[in-house]
Amino acid sequence: MTDADHSTGTRRRGRPPRTEAADTRDRILDAAREEFSERGYEKTSVRGIAKAAGVDSALVHHYFGTKEQIFETAISVAFAPALNAPIAIAEGPLDGVGERLTRFVLGIWENTTTRKPLMAIVRSAVNNDTAAAVFRRLIASQLLRRIAEQLDLPDAELRAELAAAQLVGCAMLRYVIKVEPLASADLEQIVRRVAPVVQGHLTGP
Amino acid sequence: MTDADHSTGTRRRGRPPRTEAADTRDRILDAAREEFSERGYEKTSVRGIAKAAGVDSALVHHYFGTKEQIFETAISVAFAPALNAPIAIAEGPLDGVGERLTRFVLGIWENTTTRKPLMAIVRSAVNNDTAAAVFRRLIASQLLRRIAEQLDLPDAELRAELAAAQLVGCAMLRYVIKVEPLASADLEQIVRRVAPVVQGHLTGP
Repeated sequence: MTDADHSTGTRRRGRPPRTEAADTRDRILDAAREEFSERGYEKTSVRGIAKAAGVDSALVHHYFGTKEQIFETAISVAFAPALNAPIAIAEGPLDGVGERLTRFVLGIWENTTTRKPLMAIVRSAVNNDTAAAVFRRLIASQLLRRIAEQLDLPDAELRAELAAAQLVGCAMLRYVIKVEPLASADLEQIVRRVAPVVQGHLTGP
Repeated sequence: MTDADHSTGTRRRGRPPRTEAADTRDRILDAAREEFSERGYEKTSVRGIAKAAGVDSALVHHYFGTKEQIFETAISVAFAPALNAPIAIAEGPLDGVGERLTRFVLGIWENTTTRKPLMAIVRSAVNNDTAAAVFRRLIASQLLRRIAEQLDLPDAELRAELAAAQLVGCAMLRYVIKVEPLASADLEQIVRRVAPVVQGHLTGP
């Protein structure tokens, strides 16, 4: 790749190889996200992703590696904005971190665009150990560790995980199992009850 | 069924029809529990249960109805002791209810005998709406409603569900996703941190 490839002039003149490759990669990732969402981790195959993207399986492997690696990349890309959010969550005033984290997690679930891929991740993680490992690395390590780092308390990681447990359980019962009255309760009512608990886990005695 | 059937004498003399039917029902339920545990709700078929029990599918339908009804019965039987426990949990002194509920739920997950069918229920409920409905009816209604009834507080059901959410989330992260350090943390350490939160949800302001 030369410097010229980065100039607008070069790009507008046609499709240099790098851009075409980037398009193909995007198309494969879109297909992967769609396949994993529809079928879950276990029933998705690299062959199926390749077919949906209109490319050869070998090219999928070439760009992204194994099915596990494709899964991790597809999730990372889908949740890139979400995975950067914890920094903002943890960097504000510490006495509001519980509410910020609660609003952030429930917000992803309330949003119908992010709910579907999230549901696919949860389903995959519950059904398959490899998918669970990916979930662990991404959500647990990236999200929770960043928050724990800001806390600067003993047991910070355990605190972050128990706070997350409250939110994961809320999401499970409200959005997945749909237990009433929780499933239909007003979001603000839940935030009022849950945010202090999350705050307590993170910064309490 | 006659009174004589209940006498030990009759039973020891041989196998009256009623007992044979009961044996068959038990065998079908064992097979159902095993199939649901191994394959999850979606991949289990009435035909497969019948085959594993060595009977005709029609007999399975005759005794237990649809696949959904078999699933519900199999779970009810497996968790009969657990489903009666909430009465004891809720009937003790109210200021210890958080710890009793916490020890009860985490106890089922710590116990390797109950963990496997529980995992199967969670997997099925996350993957399939019909299984989720069964989970809702059994766990949510039977377990949580009984506890809520004892609380005698406004929002008692929502309180019980948010308390359950903390415990469901703990179980998910510790036993299913296996996030560290939570997965390897000492049970007593978790009880110390979680029980007051569960108590707060149930009886707090």
